[in-house]
Amino acid sequence: MREILSQLENDRQRHFDELCDLLRIPSVSTDPKHKGEVQRCAQAVAARLERAGIRSEIHPTEGHPVVYGEWLEAQGKPTVLVYGHYDVQPPDPVELWTSPPFEPTVRAGQLYARGAADDKGQFFIHIAAAEAHLKTRGRLPLNLKFLLEGEEEIGSAHLEPFVQAHQKKLAADVVMVSDTPFFARGLPTICTGLRGLAYLELHMTGADRDLHSGTYGGAVRNPAEELARLIAQLKDDQGRILIPGFYDDVRPLSPREREEYARLPFDEAAYAADLGVEALHGENGYTTLERTSARPTLEVNGLLSGWTGEGSKTVLPSRAMAKISMRLVADQDPAQIAKLFTEHVSSLVPRGARLEVLNLHGGRPFLADSGHPAVQAAARALEQAFGKRPVFSREGGTIPIAASFRQHLGLNSIFMGIGVPDENLHAPDEHLDLENFYGGIRAAALFLQEYAG
Amino acid sequence: MREILSQLENDRQRHFDELCDLLRIPSVSTDPKHKGEVQRCAQAVAARLERAGIRSEIHPTEGHPVVYGEWLEAQGKPTVLVYGHYDVQPPDPVELWTSPPFEPTVRAGQLYARGAADDKGQFFIHIAAAEAHLKTRGRLPLNLKFLLEGEEEIGSAHLEPFVQAHQKKLAADVVMVSDTPFFARGLPTICTGLRGLAYLELHMTGADRDLHSGTYGGAVRNPAEELARLIAQLKDDQGRILIPGFYDDVRPLSPREREEYARLPFDEAAYAADLGVEALHGENGYTTLERTSARPTLEVNGLLSGWTGEGSKTVLPSRAMAKISMRLVADQDPAQIAKLFTEHVSSLVPRGARLEVLNLHGGRPFLADSGHPAVQAAARALEQAFGKRPVFSREGGTIPIAASFRQHLGLNSIFMGIGVPDENLHAPDEHLDLENFYGGIRAAALFLQEYAG
Repeated sequence: MREILSQLENDRQRHFDELCDLLRIPSVSTDPKHKGEVQRCAQAVAARLERAGIRSEIHPTEGHPVVYGEWLEAQGKPTVLVYGHYDVQPPDPVELWTSPPFEPTVRAGQLYARGAADDKGQFFIHIAAAEAHLKTRGRLPLNLKFLLEGEEEIGSAHLEPFVQAHQKKLAADVVMVSDTPFFARGLPTICTGLRGLAYLELHMTGADRDLHSGTYGGAVRNPAEELARLIAQLKDDQGRILIPGFYDDVRPLSPREREEYARLPFDEAAYAADLGVEALHGENGYTTLERTSARPTLEVNGLLSGWTGEGSKTVLPSRAMAKISMRLVADQDPAQIAKLFTEHVSSLVPRGARLEVLNLHGGRPFLADSGHPAVQAAARALEQAFGKRPVFSREGGTIPIAASFRQHLGLNSIFMGIGVPDENLHAPDEHLDLENFYGGIRAAALFLQEYAG
Repeated sequence: MREILSQLENDRQRHFDELCDLLRIPSVSTDPKHKGEVQRCAQAVAARLERAGIRSEIHPTEGHPVVYGEWLEAQGKPTVLVYGHYDVQPPDPVELWTSPPFEPTVRAGQLYARGAADDKGQFFIHIAAAEAHLKTRGRLPLNLKFLLEGEEEIGSAHLEPFVQAHQKKLAADVVMVSDTPFFARGLPTICTGLRGLAYLELHMTGADRDLHSGTYGGAVRNPAEELARLIAQLKDDQGRILIPGFYDDVRPLSPREREEYARLPFDEAAYAADLGVEALHGENGYTTLERTSARPTLEVNGLLSGWTGEGSKTVLPSRAMAKISMRLVADQDPAQIAKLFTEHVSSLVPRGARLEVLNLHGGRPFLADSGHPAVQAAARALEQAFGKRPVFSREGGTIPIAASFRQHLGLNSIFMGIGVPDENLHAPDEHLDLENFYGGIRAAALFLQEYAG
């Protein structure tokens, strides 16, 4: 491996430049205006796989394309399926970025750009690692497949049918995913759990048109007020979600899991100070780490009603919109939760108002099998690459496809991510620590060797 | 008067064309981008006064200009001060207009345009009426002044100092205002009460930046949720506003006033059907007419937080904004109400969130002296012009300057408006009934004669 690691050392500048090329493409999957850019990004990723020596294909879907790659010449050796996504979140609010979101910029060793950590900088490590093996030895120690999608940020609607339709093509021994952060800077981490998601949109309507609040104020339901009342009824004053049946399928934390959580290095005061809040807040009876990874939550993601421009418009709005999502934990089912949510909010609508509920998307929660040999191989690779034994922890985010891989391909997933905890995922100034990036490439290269045995 | 009324009959097309010219100017006072258009509208109004034979002046203010006009050659006769406003509400949401808001269009005898009823089509009747007198007889039967402002829709901030600074110039016997609708189509109406206004904007902040709802969901206050909780605490389930002290200065309705209200023609079912609601809603213990004109109300006018575009962005927002206004009745004071509101909402903010409250503008409520001789003259003029005895009723909207005229000039105001009840004020498809427009010009011309005696 010494030769490969030395090759990687020599290729640092090129790896950096190649990642920046990908980051300059605004592959915002949720925005129809960016459809062409998402397509262009798929082409760039496929071309990068080819240059690394991995045969690639672009599969169109009804949404954004899937990029597939494979190198299958290690007969008798196991097969790893690397999953990642080349689409990114919208950069809004753009004005809060220190440097433009699609112009990669380095400050203090951090690479700032939308997608740097989520997920372009992370799936890239596996391409660079495979390339180093192929360049140095002319072969990989095991078989490798890549599955890189363009719809992760909008619910992977077309990936699940793709996986179902290509079970043979995607057959493997394990799935490798790099789309999670270190638990703390300098502390390599294998993620053993991910939360699921149910994301819905509510439209409350009062009168059938906007009204003058002077002439009609006091006569009809105000949908903005009624939506606020509805939202206020979704949790009690202990932070517990009031949707009937919501907690029925939640696996309770065992005393042993809670002890493990308590051992992780975590400074509540520093965490609150970093976020600029006077106090943290969440479900009573759980620690912040438990609340953000092992407990389900409900968040308002967006609100819109009436006049939101400058100054005062005395309108009594006809409509009000809220986007509300719930993070789910094993064994909650997103379809069932969406149904319970819809029933509950529908029951809260008073006469004189109407409510429409749209189910935008969902993802299943995931709990890993930490005894899998690939998980142990990943742990050894991380320790060699970063000089520190990794910790195992759960993440609060959602990578719903992990549950699909288990369901449709019968595969376990390993989450070996190299983000940093304060990476501003989905927010302005998203960034990736460049030392994690280069270390991640080393770890990905070592993993191939370790797992091949 | 026969000659004048016949002249008005001949001038119908010209009056229509001239009103359309004014309506084509998008004099949206709240939007800084339209500053030039507001200025252009002031010039057009001043020019129109001059053409009518009324000497006019444009007075710059720190905001939009005041247009003043006068004809003072009726020695020994009373002086009427006509007040109106040439600014308009924003046309948003523009896509809900049947025809473009600044392209006046007639459908079924109604003139559709932003400002048709509020207030360009209404103050115009007094210019046309004066012109007919001057054209036909070379003089007016009394002295006439015009005070037409460009900031009514944003709180008349610079009109009050203007009135204070020009008490002598504005001296008169009574103020005539046409900025209210008929109580019902075909039923001429003199308005005897107007509500006041306190309009505030709230900014709730949680973390100091937008966060990923997966990574941070469950850790911090969500400002959109907290703002919703705050709004939900502003009224009880009887529709009563919970701000301590809010009702202290409200003059209770007398049994006689309530009887008068009950006598007005009003069909609750038709009113609800017109608004497209299954049920009306407001403060318990009062009728819809009382709620919309004689009782104070609180309405959410706007909400904004997080992601409001297409699709699902899993953001835990940093900020949430609400615009909230209260309609006030005699003798509530907008400054005092804004103070009570601010104290109350500030007391509702939990630890981990911060609230900023901006007081955008206020206006005093108004109750008329219905025994004034000018009110009786207006009633006779309306009866002759429309062939029907007018009713007296209160309006739910706010024309705060009426309270200022009483305070600074010692003047009563007469509200002789010619709008229609379903005129879509401040909403898409605002319109004015053209028969009310032509009848209004007749009534304005007759009023000058009736009041001159």
